[in-house]
Amino acid sequence: MATPRRGSILTPRADDFPRWYQEVLDKAQLADNGPVRGTMVIRPYGYSLWERIQSEIDTRIKRAGAENVYLPLFIPEDYLKREAEHVEGFSPELAVVTHAGGKELTEPLVVRPTSETVFGELMAKWVQSHRDLPLLLNQWANVVRWEMRPRLFLRTSEFLWQEGHTAHATYEDAAAYARRIHLEVYRDFLRSVLALPVLVGVKTARERFAGAINTLTCEAMMGDGKALQVATSHELGQNFAKAFDMTFSDADGQRRLCWTTSWGSSTRIVGGLIMGHGDDGGLVVPPRLAPVQVVLLAVKDDPAVLAAIRDQAERLEHAGVRVRVDDNAGKGFGRRVTDWELKGVPLRLEIGPRDVEAGRFDVVRRDTGERVPTEAGATARVVPELLETVQRGLLASAQDRLAARTVSTESIEEAREAARLGFARIPWRILGEEGERSLATDAITVRCLQTADGRLPPDTVADDDLVAVVGRSY
Amino acid sequence: MATPRRGSILTPRADDFPRWYQEVLDKAQLADNGPVRGTMVIRPYGYSLWERIQSEIDTRIKRAGAENVYLPLFIPEDYLKREAEHVEGFSPELAVVTHAGGKELTEPLVVRPTSETVFGELMAKWVQSHRDLPLLLNQWANVVRWEMRPRLFLRTSEFLWQEGHTAHATYEDAAAYARRIHLEVYRDFLRSVLALPVLVGVKTARERFAGAINTLTCEAMMGDGKALQVATSHELGQNFAKAFDMTFSDADGQRRLCWTTSWGSSTRIVGGLIMGHGDDGGLVVPPRLAPVQVVLLAVKDDPAVLAAIRDQAERLEHAGVRVRVDDNAGKGFGRRVTDWELKGVPLRLEIGPRDVEAGRFDVVRRDTGERVPTEAGATARVVPELLETVQRGLLASAQDRLAARTVSTESIEEAREAARLGFARIPWRILGEEGERSLATDAITVRCLQTADGRLPPDTVADDDLVAVVGRSY
Repeated sequence: MATPRRGSILTPRADDFPRWYQEVLDKAQLADNGPVRGTMVIRPYGYSLWERIQSEIDTRIKRAGAENVYLPLFIPEDYLKREAEHVEGFSPELAVVTHAGGKELTEPLVVRPTSETVFGELMAKWVQSHRDLPLLLNQWANVVRWEMRPRLFLRTSEFLWQEGHTAHATYEDAAAYARRIHLEVYRDFLRSVLALPVLVGVKTARERFAGAINTLTCEAMMGDGKALQVATSHELGQNFAKAFDMTFSDADGQRRLCWTTSWGSSTRIVGGLIMGHGDDGGLVVPPRLAPVQVVLLAVKDDPAVLAAIRDQAERLEHAGVRVRVDDNAGKGFGRRVTDWELKGVPLRLEIGPRDVEAGRFDVVRRDTGERVPTEAGATARVVPELLETVQRGLLASAQDRLAARTVSTESIEEAREAARLGFARIPWRILGEEGERSLATDAITVRCLQTADGRLPPDTVADDDLVAVVGRSY
Repeated sequence: MATPRRGSILTPRADDFPRWYQEVLDKAQLADNGPVRGTMVIRPYGYSLWERIQSEIDTRIKRAGAENVYLPLFIPEDYLKREAEHVEGFSPELAVVTHAGGKELTEPLVVRPTSETVFGELMAKWVQSHRDLPLLLNQWANVVRWEMRPRLFLRTSEFLWQEGHTAHATYEDAAAYARRIHLEVYRDFLRSVLALPVLVGVKTARERFAGAINTLTCEAMMGDGKALQVATSHELGQNFAKAFDMTFSDADGQRRLCWTTSWGSSTRIVGGLIMGHGDDGGLVVPPRLAPVQVVLLAVKDDPAVLAAIRDQAERLEHAGVRVRVDDNAGKGFGRRVTDWELKGVPLRLEIGPRDVEAGRFDVVRRDTGERVPTEAGATARVVPELLETVQRGLLASAQDRLAARTVSTESIEEAREAARLGFARIPWRILGEEGERSLATDAITVRCLQTADGRLPPDTVADDDLVAVVGRSY
C-alpha cells in the first residue's frame, strides 16, 4: 500500500515558513485565536502535548527539590514598583483591573506578568531563620503580557508557564541552584525528551531579565535557522530581597538579606516543538514526548482487522506504549494517514485483511517514511525499540542542522551575513555592546554568551573571554 | 513510647469550629491569605493535596471521554451579556480589566468567572455537523468571582477549578452526559477517594446555576453538620446554544440547535477534606488521596535506625506506597509526631534503636491512634492492607455522622429545628417555594431535591414527588 504523498496539503516550509507554521497549527488542530486579540485557545491535541511537557518538566523540578505552590493572579500595583528595573521592564505589557465586585477599586490590580514580587512578599514572611533556607518553590500558572504582534504559542498576551522562585543564604548557593535548574531541568528535558540540542549560555546586559544580575538561557535553532529562547533562569542577586525585606537570622545570630533566583518555561515550547522538528507533512513529535506514540490504523472495516487491532493495542499498551486506535472507516484511509502525519505521531501500524492473514504488519515511521515489516507476535519488542531509534534520529538531525547552520566568524560584518541563514559565533571582545547595537538594526540579537567550547560560562568569567552566538529569533 | 496528647495545639472543634479550621490551615501549612483581599496562597502541602485531587478527577474525566483544552482568561464584556440570566447572576462578582498595554481598552474585558460564553463562541465554530457531536471538553483553570466574605479554600476571589463544557445533538444525550459526569466523576471520586458520602440531587429554581435549566449537585456533610456543595453539573438546555448560534446540520440535512452542559469542581474540595475528616489533632487525609501515605519517623539519629528507615522506605515504595522519610532529629520526636498528625498522614512508622534490635516496629494509625506492631519483614504486606482499612473506616464514620445528623421531618418548623445540627429531609410538597424563602431567613437552604429513597431524580419527575434536603451551608 502506497503512502499518500506528503506535504500536499501544507505550504512547503521553504516557500513560506510562517505560513507553514500557521497551517500546521490549524490543520493539526493545535490552537486557535481567542476572541480577545492576542489570546490563544489551546485545542485538545495541542493541550495533550502541553500536558506531556508539563509532566516531564514537573518531574524534573520535583527531583531538584522544589515544591509546587499557587499564588494569586492579581498583584497590587504598588508591589511592582518596588523593584525599579522590574517595573520599568514590564510596565508597557501590563493588564490592569480597575473595577471589581461592582465598584471602582481604590488601588488598581495588575494581572501578573510574572510573580517575583508576590513571591518576594510571601517568602519574606516564610523565611525567618537560616534553617528555612533554601526555600525552593515553583508554580504552574497563566500570566499576561500584552502583546502587540501575537503569534500562537510563541507570543501571546496570555500564556501558560511554570515559574520557579527560590531563596538562598548565599550568592554561591543561589547561583549554583539557577545553574542546576538550567542544566538538570531545562536542558535535560529539551535534549532527552524534546530531542532538541540547545545552546546554553548567559544573556548580555541588554537582553537580561528586568531585575536580574544574570540570566541563563536555553536557545534552540528552528527549522528556518532562527533562534527560539526556550527557557531562562535568573540570578536575581539581592534586588528582590531588598525590595521585599527578605531577611533571615544566620547561624551567628546576624540578620542577613537572602539571595534569590527565578526560572521559567512556557507553552512557547509547543511552538519550539513544531518549528524544531516539523516537516512539509506537518508536526513530527519525538516519541518520548508524544501523547500518542503509535496509531493503529484499520485499513478496512473488517471483523478480523478490528480483532487484530484490539490484540495489538493490548500488547503494545502492556509494553508501556501510548497507543491510539483509529478504526474510523467512515473516513478514507489516505485521509486518515495524512491526518496522523499532520499530528506527527511517531509510528503507525497499518492493519488490513491481507496483513492479518499473513500475520505481519507494516510499521511506518513518521520521521523517515520507512516501512518496517513486523511479525504480529514481535510488535511488543520491535515497536519500543523503533521508538527509541526515532528519538535518537530526531536529535541527530537537529544536531546536524545546528552544526551545519552555525558559522564561526571574526568580524561583525561576517556575523551579520551568517545570521541570515542561522547562527554566527563571534568573540565578545570583537562584537561588544556597540556591535550588539549595530546588529540589532538588522533584527539580529545576541542569543547568548558561551565559553569558547560551547559551555555555560562560570559566574566568574569576564565577558571578554566569551563567545557570542548571534542570530535572528522568535 | 507514648503518643503525645493530641489536639493540644488546636482549638477543639466543639469549642469553635471556624477557628479550628483556620488554625488547621495555618499550622498544617496548607494556605495563607494573598496580598489582595479575598485571594489565597496555596502552600506546598496544600498544593500537593490539590495535585492529587486533580489527578484523580482528571483520570475520571478522561475516562468519560472528555478532552482537556485551555481557553483565555479574558472575556469580552459583550459575551457575558448575550445570555440574560447568566450576566445577571455573575455581574456583581466580576473583575474588569480596563487598561492594557499602556492604553485604555475600547471594550473592557471581564476576567472569567466561568467560561460558558467563550466555550459557546468557540464550540459554535468547531461544531458543524452531527458527526462533530458530542463535543466533550474540559479545562483546568483559575477563575475570579469577587468575594465579600472570603474564607480560604471555601470562598476566595480567585480559585482553581476544572470546568467541563459539552455540546450534544439531543436533550436526552446532554442530560445523560451531565448525569454520567455527576455520578461517575464527582460522586465516584468523592466516595471512593475522598471517603465522603455525598447526597446527590438537583437544585431548586432558586439555587440553580445562572443560565441552567437543571443543576445536579453533590452535597457533603462537614464535621459541624453544615453542608458543603462540592461539585455541580448543569444542563444548560439550548440557552447558550441560542446565544452563540451553536448549530449543526443533522443527518437529515436540517440545521439544528445544540444542547449543552457544563460541570465543575474546585479547590473548595480541599476545604471539604479538612472539614469532612479533620479531628482535634488536625487534618485526617484518606489514604487513597494522601500525597504522603506513610511517614517513616526516626526516633533517634542513629546509623542502625537510619539504615532500617531506608530499607523500609524502599520496601514500601516498591509495594506502591507513597512514603516520606522524617529523620530530622534536630526537631524533637514529639513535635514531629504532632506535625505529621496535623498534616493528617494516614500512617506513621516509628523506628527507634530498640525497634531495630527487636526487628519489629509500631505502625500508628492517624485516624484511631491505634498502634499495630509489625514485623520488619511484613510491612510491605501489612501497610497496604492497613491503608485500605483506614480508607474504609473513614468512609464508614462519615456515613455514620451523616445518618445520625439527618432527620426526616414533616413540617417546616421541624425542619428548621433539625437544621441547627445537621440536615433535615422534608417533602417538597410540604416545603415549597414559600417554605424555602422562610427557611432562608435563618440561613437554611435547600441543598438538593432527591427521590424518597435518596437517589438523583430522573429528569422527568415533578418536584412535588421529591424530598428536599435542607441545612445550613458553607
